[in-house]
Amino acid sequence: MSSVKTLFEPKTVLLIGSSKIKEKVGLASPRLFKDVTYNMKRFFKGRTYVLDLEGKIGASSLNELTETPELAVVMLPPGKSLVYIEKCAAFGVKTFVIITGGYRDEQRQQLLRVKEDYGVRVLGPNTVMGVINTANGLNTTFEKGVLPRRGNIAFISQSGGVGACLLDLACFYGLGVSKMAFMGDKIDLDDVDLIQYLREDEETRVICLYMEGVKNGRQFIKEARKTVEKKPILVLKGGITQESAHRAKSHTGSITGSDEVFDAAFKKAGIIRVEDVEELLNAALALSKQPPMLGDNVAIVSNVGGPAILAADAVERSKLKMAKLSEETKSRIERLYPGVDATNPIDLIADARSDRFGKVLDFVLADENVDGVLVINMLKSCFFEPEDAKVIPKVAAKYPNKPVVDVPAGGEDFELVYKVIGDSPIPLYNLPEKGVKALKALRLYGKILGKRQGG
Amino acid sequence: MSSVKTLFEPKTVLLIGSSKIKEKVGLASPRLFKDVTYNMKRFFKGRTYVLDLEGKIGASSLNELTETPELAVVMLPPGKSLVYIEKCAAFGVKTFVIITGGYRDEQRQQLLRVKEDYGVRVLGPNTVMGVINTANGLNTTFEKGVLPRRGNIAFISQSGGVGACLLDLACFYGLGVSKMAFMGDKIDLDDVDLIQYLREDEETRVICLYMEGVKNGRQFIKEARKTVEKKPILVLKGGITQESAHRAKSHTGSITGSDEVFDAAFKKAGIIRVEDVEELLNAALALSKQPPMLGDNVAIVSNVGGPAILAADAVERSKLKMAKLSEETKSRIERLYPGVDATNPIDLIADARSDRFGKVLDFVLADENVDGVLVINMLKSCFFEPEDAKVIPKVAAKYPNKPVVDVPAGGEDFELVYKVIGDSPIPLYNLPEKGVKALKALRLYGKILGKRQGG
Repeated sequence: MSSVKTLFEPKTVLLIGSSKIKEKVGLASPRLFKDVTYNMKRFFKGRTYVLDLEGKIGASSLNELTETPELAVVMLPPGKSLVYIEKCAAFGVKTFVIITGGYRDEQRQQLLRVKEDYGVRVLGPNTVMGVINTANGLNTTFEKGVLPRRGNIAFISQSGGVGACLLDLACFYGLGVSKMAFMGDKIDLDDVDLIQYLREDEETRVICLYMEGVKNGRQFIKEARKTVEKKPILVLKGGITQESAHRAKSHTGSITGSDEVFDAAFKKAGIIRVEDVEELLNAALALSKQPPMLGDNVAIVSNVGGPAILAADAVERSKLKMAKLSEETKSRIERLYPGVDATNPIDLIADARSDRFGKVLDFVLADENVDGVLVINMLKSCFFEPEDAKVIPKVAAKYPNKPVVDVPAGGEDFELVYKVIGDSPIPLYNLPEKGVKALKALRLYGKILGKRQGG
Repeated sequence: MSSVKTLFEPKTVLLIGSSKIKEKVGLASPRLFKDVTYNMKRFFKGRTYVLDLEGKIGASSLNELTETPELAVVMLPPGKSLVYIEKCAAFGVKTFVIITGGYRDEQRQQLLRVKEDYGVRVLGPNTVMGVINTANGLNTTFEKGVLPRRGNIAFISQSGGVGACLLDLACFYGLGVSKMAFMGDKIDLDDVDLIQYLREDEETRVICLYMEGVKNGRQFIKEARKTVEKKPILVLKGGITQESAHRAKSHTGSITGSDEVFDAAFKKAGIIRVEDVEELLNAALALSKQPPMLGDNVAIVSNVGGPAILAADAVERSKLKMAKLSEETKSRIERLYPGVDATNPIDLIADARSDRFGKVLDFVLADENVDGVLVINMLKSCFFEPEDAKVIPKVAAKYPNKPVVDVPAGGEDFELVYKVIGDSPIPLYNLPEKGVKALKALRLYGKILGKRQGG
């Protein structure tokens, strides 16, 4: 079993901390120790051992353990960490997650020596949140009782803070997560190792990456290229400016290059770059549920005029195209619904219900001039009822090679429709512009796959 | 009393509809009539009269009314609408809201003749949602039981759908609204009339406008220029492309010009243009609560590294500047908190609580190199508690000329902090990039005011 596999799929985990030590910098504290222990005991389906330096919780020495744990989670300040990591390595532990930070350079060197001497692998230090695997309940975060829903989106974050933000949003919006890993200072395990593992992970369909810098750019590109043939990679890159790069350097010790260099590298690797956290999550949702889009032509089917116009504007801005519907499609629509002007964007009018949405969506998806469809179904100012939304996944399922996204625009309207079809394969967005960006991500992945397939 | 004043502040309102007629196009239906009646009776603090063509609800003829209503809300198909509008005008009604649409050209002409003959004013037709005034409970929408919270943001929307989306989002996020008006086909009352009114409206601090086209561009610019000296105007323009302009034309009969022409006109008028609905709401929230930003220099005070880096990136992208803190400010921070690197963006480290946030925010706001501050206070991966957020409005209040926005990044974290300081003068955003865009809007308004003051 590879060490990265142990990182996510250990059978036995040892938590090492102190119910007394509290550091000013680096996060080591009794509270951290207690909350990680709580989460592991509550969620983890394997065996959890606890080693407290004060002997108050669990064991007080490794000799008390009845077996050698596969993974150790370290929550001590640097000096004490090093002592215990070496002890554990000598005891047979193969993989380490170091939650705490604050390592000085000589301490990093010492950590690398232990790693070399014992052939162990290390995530961190300064991972802050460590790892999550929703399949086996592994959860080394200190957010008491928080575990995202099981699903097929994997997150790798260099930053604990961005990772925590992604975790919080994923939980809040019910996004399905396979794995999360917070890399921190990346002294050993890094993007390359994790991408290699996630490429083969059957639970993962989309890989999301927040990075501030990369150690071995060439290898990263190589692994990414290989991966995107099987599943898409989305990247959010932090530290594009001098100021933020300065902070990234002190934050996770990243060596950062110019933003243009990264941009070119991502393109070469077939990685889809996003600009912010929201775009990352929205694109991941689309890619986790829908097929890649094989052409640029978007049709918009809406029960309101204004939001459809905004969607058409967004199609233009994102360099997709408004599909030109065939005459046959137009006449099929207009024959059945004389009040409807079947020019794309199609306005079904405020009184459209399930039947009109279903039939028109079917006509439009059957049109070979259409590569993907954005549906807008508002409730407010319309006669549409949440239950009517069921027709969308039903019709979309007939066309497995054309992506469909749905926009029940608004706040409450979105929630009401989400309750009905939120678990379906149709991704939902609360505003037209977000739905268009989602289609754009599906189109980008279609292009990436096309390039690969074509050579 | 001007007719636009009657539109928003009538003492008596007449609702005209039919408990029987249902049209295929144009929204006239018993359901619409019933739901608008429900809302008016539930919310409106003035007197509501109802006239049902079938005589089932309220009066069946104008002669049964004991007084002349100031405002009539018309929910009939075009032909019947025209008959009753003329009857009402002859009866002394001065202002009309026409909810329903579907008017042919000759019916529009007829409507204009009635308007001229009797000197009445008309909002619509095809307004779909009509008007809302949270101060007197006037609510001609057919969203049963829905009324936004009273506040100081006014919305004018040419589209019922976009307006409904704004209404739904405003309610969902608890945004404070003064007035809403849905203009529909703008046969008479338009952006110019409404802006004139809102300029003098003491309940309104920010004006938000969704438009697809404008009738009298020169007058619009003139009125807007005059208005922005008193309060900011935000505009979202729909129909930037050929396709969407086509739809806008059939949607609300707009004559649209090229997008560049609009862009230049907005600049000339001192109007702040936004790109999507979310940006509109986020900017409105900032402008409704915070002072304009008088320079470009942003300081970021955060308890997490990664999100602060993303915020710094967003500052760069939005063409603001990262403030260079004075040596004095830096040493004040580092003397008190030796673990903190006081280079902007300032990372207070994950264990920062109320006290550290408050002191550092105070030092930073006192620095003359700083024009505005973005605070990031995450809960997840940090020791910050929701109650700690109270220190932010408290310290910010000491510096009334420097805007402060707060980013409790995430989903649940945002909600928890919102519960504590959501009603304070500090606008909250769930992601760093949105907070930066909010500061950008405050900066743009600062520039607009500067230009005006300087001549």
